[in-house]
Amino acid sequence: MKIDGQHFRTIWLKENDPTTVQIIDQRFLPHKLIIEDLKKTEDFVNAIREMHVRGAPLIGGTAVLGLYIACLEAPDGEQGLNYITEALSRLRATRPTAVDLFSWTERVFQEVIKGQDKEERISIALQMSKQLIEESAEHCRMIGTYGFDLIKSISEENNGAPVNILTHCNAGWIACIDYGTATSPIYAAHDAGIPVHVWVDETRPRNQGARLTAYELGQHGVPHTVIVDNVGGHLMQHGMVDLVFVGSDRTTRQGDVANKIGTYLKALAANDNNVPFYVTLPHSSIDWDLRDGLSEIPIEERGSEEVKYIQGLVDGEIKKVLLTPPQSPALNYGFDVTPAKYVTGIITERGICEASEEGLLKLYPEQQLAVK
Amino acid sequence: MKIDGQHFRTIWLKENDPTTVQIIDQRFLPHKLIIEDLKKTEDFVNAIREMHVRGAPLIGGTAVLGLYIACLEAPDGEQGLNYITEALSRLRATRPTAVDLFSWTERVFQEVIKGQDKEERISIALQMSKQLIEESAEHCRMIGTYGFDLIKSISEENNGAPVNILTHCNAGWIACIDYGTATSPIYAAHDAGIPVHVWVDETRPRNQGARLTAYELGQHGVPHTVIVDNVGGHLMQHGMVDLVFVGSDRTTRQGDVANKIGTYLKALAANDNNVPFYVTLPHSSIDWDLRDGLSEIPIEERGSEEVKYIQGLVDGEIKKVLLTPPQSPALNYGFDVTPAKYVTGIITERGICEASEEGLLKLYPEQQLAVK
Repeated sequence: MKIDGQHFRTIWLKENDPTTVQIIDQRFLPHKLIIEDLKKTEDFVNAIREMHVRGAPLIGGTAVLGLYIACLEAPDGEQGLNYITEALSRLRATRPTAVDLFSWTERVFQEVIKGQDKEERISIALQMSKQLIEESAEHCRMIGTYGFDLIKSISEENNGAPVNILTHCNAGWIACIDYGTATSPIYAAHDAGIPVHVWVDETRPRNQGARLTAYELGQHGVPHTVIVDNVGGHLMQHGMVDLVFVGSDRTTRQGDVANKIGTYLKALAANDNNVPFYVTLPHSSIDWDLRDGLSEIPIEERGSEEVKYIQGLVDGEIKKVLLTPPQSPALNYGFDVTPAKYVTGIITERGICEASEEGLLKLYPEQQLAVK
Repeated sequence: MKIDGQHFRTIWLKENDPTTVQIIDQRFLPHKLIIEDLKKTEDFVNAIREMHVRGAPLIGGTAVLGLYIACLEAPDGEQGLNYITEALSRLRATRPTAVDLFSWTERVFQEVIKGQDKEERISIALQMSKQLIEESAEHCRMIGTYGFDLIKSISEENNGAPVNILTHCNAGWIACIDYGTATSPIYAAHDAGIPVHVWVDETRPRNQGARLTAYELGQHGVPHTVIVDNVGGHLMQHGMVDLVFVGSDRTTRQGDVANKIGTYLKALAANDNNVPFYVTLPHSSIDWDLRDGLSEIPIEERGSEEVKYIQGLVDGEIKKVLLTPPQSPALNYGFDVTPAKYVTGIITERGICEASEEGLLKLYPEQQLAVK
């Protein structure tokens, strides 16, 4: 999508230097657009763990290009395989919840180890990473086409009044390679001339909504309003939300959805007010090995300083301010699980289905065989 | 309650100067304890509107002492009554949701206008304000004794393990005259040696939880943990909350509760996870004239800069930082309404009742006559 009129993706090989990967360092958005060079495996580990990049598909894309860089760094022969295996485990130890990190790196790693020598491993890693990244962008585009139909029909019911869509966190193109998941239908509708308006949950503690979703919608010209996370229920009680679109970091076989902390509360409010609540996700974020999200999906606990401090712009500089009494402890869970019963439907690159094993298997019949 | 070992209330007449009222200017907590002198009616109007003071009972207390100062300022005779009436309407135009502002000032005003001359009006206003303030503190203390029993019985069920209580916003002594409403049972239990632990919702946009509740609990030595507003549902799903206590800014005859924005979302989560959800309130916050909270309680909309900016401590100074893209609009509702069906019980100075007209009338049979 576009920043200041220029087309961007979130990750790419540096022009004229295929040994360097470039990303947007998202920690400084919306205040500064900083492009970062990643040159060593450790740079990728750090970029994922410290959230220079975030969002399930973009974490996947960063991790596989990290594996490619590890192949460049690795010696030849058996020693090289050990090096790559060790790099894989460091890349995987960065964040626990999003499944793309594990599934994408697994696919690349399984092919890389078939490589006869260093050159072949490098070539396989690069080619497969590129392929996964292209696939992921295409899947997001497809999600947009299915979600578009939902927006269009509400717009018709509303006689062309703007369709009010609430979203939580950033499941935008900045979380993906391009288009986004939750935002993809919104961009598709907006670009087709259907009036939309987006309620952007700020999404404490890291404010991915206020910082990133508001930024990317604004850059693309989509009307939006930032709200604190407490407001969504009130808006739904008063008929001010037509539709909720959120993303997913990990979805179980039975349709339970792990997404940014607070998603569950919005699902409850949507359910209480008969507002359709859709989860948008490429199949890469489905973990077919899990059933019960509440007991089986590991939930990341992050540092308490993300709660006690917040970053913003003051006197032209990006600084962190202390919000709490210095001695008060704080706790910081990154995700929660929305049980399938509160999800109206799941939108993937193959279509829209019920949030249930039966629903998901209609879209992915090949997973019948993988019953756990 | 205590700050740094010293006993405080939230509002008082200045020592040796009965023409000046003093308050804690809460805008600078927890970072700085600033005592402000209020000398003119306009100081009171400003202190309420700009939230130097907040919380339904404290707004009530500030407004009636403002009316007392207006009586001091007013000329004698008919002109004086006009002056006081005009001051009343300015005090009442400060904030729309909390009913105490209207009920307390109404009671004082109705007596004041019976005064024969300026001196008598001043004397009536002062005496009645003091009486309402003392009554309010006593009501909060009584709420504590009833809520204490709930905590005690959970503590016994838990075999003495700490009772985990979640609260939203600040319904603490800082929102009242003393003790608080939601915090009063917590202080009572803690002081009686029953182990409690409080989950403190930060309560964006103004962070009354992270700033004020965490501060007052910390000053009193009550174990607590600050969480962002998105976390409570996850904690309840995982059995980490035994009880929810919140306050109320206005409660209808049928038990619908207007409280700080986001309360409704926590009530939904408590309901979904069978966590008892109690609303603590002195009867002064019951509006017997209203039935349906969703359609009848006016909800304050505040400035968008409270969403776009947040205040904290940086480099030893209290500053505001910008959180959003500068061009993104924001919307800021101050309260939401929790329908009675999601309220386990209401705790008042007279006891605990069901959140319904029948329940409330058992505690307040004298209101039978006032059926609308």
